[in-house]
Amino acid sequence: MELYNYFRSSASFRVRIALALKGLDYAYRPVHLAKNEQFGEAFGALSATHLVPALRDGDALIGQSLAIIEYLDETRPDPALLPRDALGRARVRSLALDIACEIHPLNNLRVLRYLVRELGVAEDAKNGWYRHWVEHGLAAFERRLAGEPGTGRFCHGDAPTMADCVLVPQVFNAQRFACRLDHVPTVMRVFEACMALPAFQQAQPSACPDAEA
Amino acid sequence: MELYNYFRSSASFRVRIALALKGLDYAYRPVHLAKNEQFGEAFGALSATHLVPALRDGDALIGQSLAIIEYLDETRPDPALLPRDALGRARVRSLALDIACEIHPLNNLRVLRYLVRELGVAEDAKNGWYRHWVEHGLAAFERRLAGEPGTGRFCHGDAPTMADCVLVPQVFNAQRFACRLDHVPTVMRVFEACMALPAFQQAQPSACPDAEA
Repeated sequence: MELYNYFRSSASFRVRIALALKGLDYAYRPVHLAKNEQFGEAFGALSATHLVPALRDGDALIGQSLAIIEYLDETRPDPALLPRDALGRARVRSLALDIACEIHPLNNLRVLRYLVRELGVAEDAKNGWYRHWVEHGLAAFERRLAGEPGTGRFCHGDAPTMADCVLVPQVFNAQRFACRLDHVPTVMRVFEACMALPAFQQAQPSACPDAEA
Repeated sequence: MELYNYFRSSASFRVRIALALKGLDYAYRPVHLAKNEQFGEAFGALSATHLVPALRDGDALIGQSLAIIEYLDETRPDPALLPRDALGRARVRSLALDIACEIHPLNNLRVLRYLVRELGVAEDAKNGWYRHWVEHGLAAFERRLAGEPGTGRFCHGDAPTMADCVLVPQVFNAQRFACRLDHVPTVMRVFEACMALPAFQQAQPSACPDAEA
């Protein structure tokens, strides 16, 4: 398998965690988003959406981090990243989507660029926007983790799932942009439990071949 | 089952389509987003995230439209809204996420409110923002539909899938905000094929009990 990705892309980070948790080997193909390589000829010939991550498996190229993780879980099921019961699967998926649909899309590079370049938003206000969606989104996530009986050592039970693959990169982003995190103690407890595992350590941005300081 | 939803919420619309395609009965529970009922006592007691749609099935309450549709497909499998093969499932999920993560989150009510109230963005610029993400996002979706062999009468093959449940509400939004659609002929062909089906007609905003002019 080959993974087209970028060290700082949190959607890429989700997939790297899933691959590491499953112990799967892959070739790391860097696509430098800040240099717009996703729009270049090489990656453009592969991907109609110009989005990373994208996973090549044989002849197929699969996009969208959550679709990739579900595909890996169906084709390489051990260890499972989704529970076996339908309600548990729904809970893990909805937790993952609470970040993937409600927080992350508002804070990615092209959106921040649009705010600054097209709408003339100042640096301070742009950072306020970033923190607003992260802090409010993680507060909602915290209410779920703290209030729902499914929460265990990890987001769902005592083994990592797709929800943890999505949560950890979001906390990395929050820390990088100096967001408040003192209001989300359960989130941080789960984050620490994840980061104690080698798979999460191996997948983090600073451990990537294309990492920059 | 009960569905907490809002006639104009396109994430709610996705789930209404899935329920209609499967021929499932449910009690319609309106939550008026423009009046902030999602933050009120009644819905707040149910949902930690204050998001619609939310599906009640027995004792469980499930949030996030794509998690709800996957749950319905696992527990009420006929007719299937996801293909049986892993690659087909990955394609349908990634198409759904290309809209649910790349377009819709940028254009929902709370984001437009933040642009206007917190960032002081003018009406014209706000509408430009809306159209930008819709037109660019649907152009990427069009490249996929037009270029990938999996496309049939619908987004994937000749029966509706979760991808169509997500595409149709996005096209409704595009039309409501007068976005360009002449650059996405395959999208519009699939949209018309969907709207020829009673399930899509029944689920549309104007057919909802809480519909407003």
